[in-house]
Parts: sequence; structure tokens; C-alpha cells
Amino acid sequence: MDKPLKYAVFGAGSWATAIVKMLCENLDEVGWYMRSVYIKEHILREEHNPSYLSSVEFNIKQLKISNDINETAAYTDVLIFVIPSAFIYKELEKLNIDITNKTIVSAVKGIVPETGLLVGEHFNEHYKVPFESIAVIAGPCHAEEVALERLSYLTISCWDAEKAQHIANSLSSDYIKTKISDDVIGVEYGVMLKNIYAIAAGIAHGLGYGDNFQSVLMSNAIREMKRFIKKVHKMKRNINNSAYLGDLLVTGYSVFSRNRMFGNMIGKGYTVKSAQMEMNMVAEGYYATKSAFLINTNNEKKADTPIINAVFEILYENKNPKKVFKKLTDKLD
Amino acid sequence: MDKPLKYAVFGAGSWATAIVKMLCENLDEVGWYMRSVYIKEHILREEHNPSYLSSVEFNIKQLKISNDINETAAYTDVLIFVIPSAFIYKELEKLNIDITNKTIVSAVKGIVPETGLLVGEHFNEHYKVPFESIAVIAGPCHAEEVALERLSYLTISCWDAEKAQHIANSLSSDYIKTKISDDVIGVEYGVMLKNIYAIAAGIAHGLGYGDNFQSVLMSNAIREMKRFIKKVHKMKRNINNSAYLGDLLVTGYSVFSRNRMFGNMIGKGYTVKSAQMEMNMVAEGYYATKSAFLINTNNEKKADTPIINAVFEILYENKNPKKVFKKLTDKLD
Repeated sequence: MDKPLKYAVFGAGSWATAIVKMLCENLDEVGWYMRSVYIKEHILREEHNPSYLSSVEFNIKQLKISNDINETAAYTDVLIFVIPSAFIYKELEKLNIDITNKTIVSAVKGIVPETGLLVGEHFNEHYKVPFESIAVIAGPCHAEEVALERLSYLTISCWDAEKAQHIANSLSSDYIKTKISDDVIGVEYGVMLKNIYAIAAGIAHGLGYGDNFQSVLMSNAIREMKRFIKKVHKMKRNINNSAYLGDLLVTGYSVFSRNRMFGNMIGKGYTVKSAQMEMNMVAEGYYATKSAFLINTNNEKKADTPIINAVFEILYENKNPKKVFKKLTDKLD
Repeated sequence: MDKPLKYAVFGAGSWATAIVKMLCENLDEVGWYMRSVYIKEHILREEHNPSYLSSVEFNIKQLKISNDINETAAYTDVLIFVIPSAFIYKELEKLNIDITNKTIVSAVKGIVPETGLLVGEHFNEHYKVPFESIAVIAGPCHAEEVALERLSYLTISCWDAEKAQHIANSLSSDYIKTKISDDVIGVEYGVMLKNIYAIAAGIAHGLGYGDNFQSVLMSNAIREMKRFIKKVHKMKRNINNSAYLGDLLVTGYSVFSRNRMFGNMIGKGYTVKSAQMEMNMVAEGYYATKSAFLINTNNEKKADTPIINAVFEILYENKNPKKVFKKLTDKLD
């Protein structure tokens, strides 16, 4: 590492825990903010997170755990946020120190529901963090496989290549390969859109469509993602890179994806509300669907997005999934 | 249908049986050539194929089954070949009637091992069928899902759009959607290459790589496929269309794919020979690997094909799968 920058992770879910593990492979000290006093004390006592990736053992001497977001933020140069998008707005309201000179990394997979902004945009607009200091971590990466130290690839996007590389170096190890990219907006949109397509894949499965259709859906999804991102942020990008296509596939084909599971329940006849109650959580893609639909609808240069539109109609306009998908199948090829 | 052309299917495996079923949805009469007298008699007596997709019931009055390839070929205007590539050369040697004025459709998923040619090229070179009369059927389509009448999409490629559309119309139904394309060579290469990538996916799985890596592998595979096909047949194509990416995904993610299963055994430590003996068959991708490697090696404009090269080294140069894949992971991103 060229500079001894201090890193911290904000959040204590599975992806946050996986990122702490990655950082611990390289750094002497890693800051870790979490809301829950119980989880903090459990980690300090038992050396693992009781709720997520509990097989991962930490060396407590490496960790600087806190329940005070300002304490952790003040201590840190590079702040990695891994809080579900549904909660990030409220969590950030606690922040009362200046973070304009820090590097902000989003590992949040979605959009801030209250503002309809990408997490990076939210930090830029509401916390005056310049875009050069905002980075995004994208997979394809199930946290569970990081726990097992199975080889995974990450893409770190930042307009400032030096910052991207520094973050990449802090995360790399025997089982984590990294690359950097300057498409911070496109990658963050990709991360958000893939969750909508995972919901679509789940709905299709719930309705009884098979593997042949799933592959057609994914083939159409990546083309739709390319069109969508091109309209909101035009630049040269290969949509088939791991950060876009790879991340779409690992989510869309995962039977463990919460978004896919949520879609599956909708396809099987659950209402949105009962599916959310049953899962005891809100899938990121639920908010992403509304945001993506509105972004595209309000854009002067609209992209053709039949899959996003179909999911929106089902989740927000209470339309019949079977009928909506029947119509959708005519638009795919 | 504009013209009452006569169609026949050559072969009696699962994909052949599925195509006969599709044709029976539209045509009064469908020719069906198969080698096996036993299967022919069983179908005539029991109204289903005893060995493949046995749940599919046929109306015998619609079928014109024969064990004489020349009889079926003579009767037919559109000949759909669905014989495994390992056997097609020998089967075609029985053909002694002129087929130059007929339409030849390849639903063979591979290359003719004896000549190293695509099936379409083989018909063009050895049987003087003009390229305008050669078509290719591509998925993504597991035959088993056709049997279940699950929605599937096919792409029919032919330089002659009218012929492509005629074939497409003969295959379309409630559960089969079709599109046409003029990229007959690119689509046939895609169909062949995907089997190599399915072997690679199987090897990775056998070696213990997980879902994160699988999605990186597929993301790299589609980029490699694009580079490969561009060198052998440059034209405007969207590699993310269902015929290329969709077909790659349905095979690469299928636990039933024989190519993936073959790769999985290799990854788990079987020798090529013992894996083939255990499976009691040769996976199409085994021949495709050698052909693709040689085509690219002998091409003046070589494509960068790390995945094909890795599979070639393992299958044909007896190299250690673990070591080869360790090196491969450094070339992927």
C-alpha cells in the first residue's frame, strides 16, 4: 500500500462482513460501524458475527468496532457503506461530521428510496462529496462464497484511478481478484438494475417458465441494461464485463438471491405486501424498480425497457403477473 | 404456410424428437428418418419414442417414419439433420441421392470431426448444397422443456430470409417463438463454442470453484465467443442475442448438459477416457474444443481465446486441470 489510509466498513450484514474479512487480509486495522450493540459485543466476545457469515473468524485486535457512526467516520479516510438502501438515508442522518475530504465507497446495491438517487449521487448531492472521491464496489460476488474463500472477482469504479487502485489493493487477496474502472455511474446503475432482473427471473420461475425462458430473459436483460445505462450515462463500456453481465448472472441465476425469491413469491400468487411480510424484509429490487421506471420515464431520451416496465406494472400497478408476462414474452427475442 | 414443402427430421435423439413434435403442431405430414429399427417399431406401436422424451405422444398418421435415409431424403424438400456430430459423417455416407436442390437445416450442435467443418460447411463442400439453401437452428432450448411445452425461443439462420421464415413458421407454436437471422455461420460457431464453455464451467465446478467464478467465466466466455466469431466471419451481430448468449447460458448453467457433466468429471479427476467411458458417450464439446483450437491457431488473425486454450490443454495435452485453471483465472477479469 502506498499510503497508510484508514478504512472502515459501515454495516453488519453479510456483504459488510465479507468486505471486513477482505480488508483484514491486508490492513493492520479496520474500522467497523454497526448499529447493533448486541452484534458488536458478540463479535468482541466470540470473534464472529452472530447473524451473518458466522463461520468467518476475526482477529479482534485488527478491528475497531463502534456503535457510533461519527466516531468511525472521524477516524477513517475511506468509508465503505454497506447498509441496505432502504435504511441508508436514516443512518446517514446521524452523521454530523464533515466528510467532504474523505473517500466514499458504495457497496450498497440499490437506490436511496427517499431521494431516488444512486448512493454515489446521494453523497455528492447531500454531503458535497466530489465525484472524484466516490467509488463503487461491484461483484459478481455472493458474500457466502467470500466466507468460503472461493475465488471471486470485484470491480472498483472511481473517476480517480489512483483511488480506485488503492481500494482494489486493500481488497485483493488469494481469493479476491480486482479490476478498476472509471464507469462509476454505469456500474452503480448496473448493480441496481440487476436486482430488477432478478425479480423478473423469480416471477418467471414462480409462473412456471423454465430454463429456456430464463436464458432468453437474461439475454434480453443485458441488452436492456445496456440501453438503459447508455441513456443515463453515455460512455464507452463493454456491458459484458463481469461488473455488469457477471453481476447480473450471479444474481439472476441464484436461488439464494432475495430479489429472485421475492419475485418467485409474486409469480406464485403472493401479493407484494404478503411476500414482503413473509420474507420479513424488503428486497432492494423493489425500490430499484420504481426508481428505474421513473428515471427512464422522465428521461427525454427513453430507453426501451420492457422487462423493467413489466416488473413495475406487477409491483406498483397491481397487474396480474401471468398476463403481464404473457405480453412481455412477445417483446423478447 | 405459403408452399406445401415437405419436412423431415434425421435422427431420433431428444432434440430430434423435440423438433418432430414442433413440426407436428403445424404440418400434416412429417418425415422422420432414424437408424434404429427397434425405435421405429416402438414409435409406430406405442406412439412415443422409447428412449428420448418418452412423454411426448405422437399421432402416428402424421409421421412418415423410415430406416432408409435415401427414402426419407428423396421424399423431402427441407431436411433437418439432428444427428450427433460424431456420427453424422458416417450416416451421410449412406446418402446416394442428389440433395443439391433441397434445403438443408443443421440442428447438429457441433463440428464434423472427420473434416473439421461446421455441418453447414460440410454440406456445402461435400454435397454441393449452395449456402443459400443451408440453415441452422439455434436455441436456447433444452429438448426436455419442449416436451413439457414450456415457452422456448429459437433462431433460424439462413442467407435466404424467405427460407428462414418458412422454417420458422413450421416450428412456431404457442410454446415456440422464432426469429430469423442471416448469420448462419456465426450462429453455428456459437452453437459449437458454447459446448466448450459448458465443459469449462463443468471443470471449474469439479475443481471446487463456486457461483461467483461461474458468472465471471460466462462473462468472459461471451466476450471470447465474440472475438472468435468476429475473426472467422466478420459481420454486424449482437452477441447478446438469444442465439449466442442465451444458448451459452442455458448450456453453461444446466446441470443436465452432457458437456458440463463431462467437464465436471474431468475437474474431479477423471481422465478424459474414463469420463467418456463412464458417460458412455462423447460430449460434442470434446470435438469442438480441438476444432476451435485448430481453427483459431491456423487463422492468420488469431483471437485471444484463453478459455478454449485451457480446455484444449486439459483434454488434448493431458495437462493438470487445477494448474491450467489457476493460470486461466489470471487471464479472466
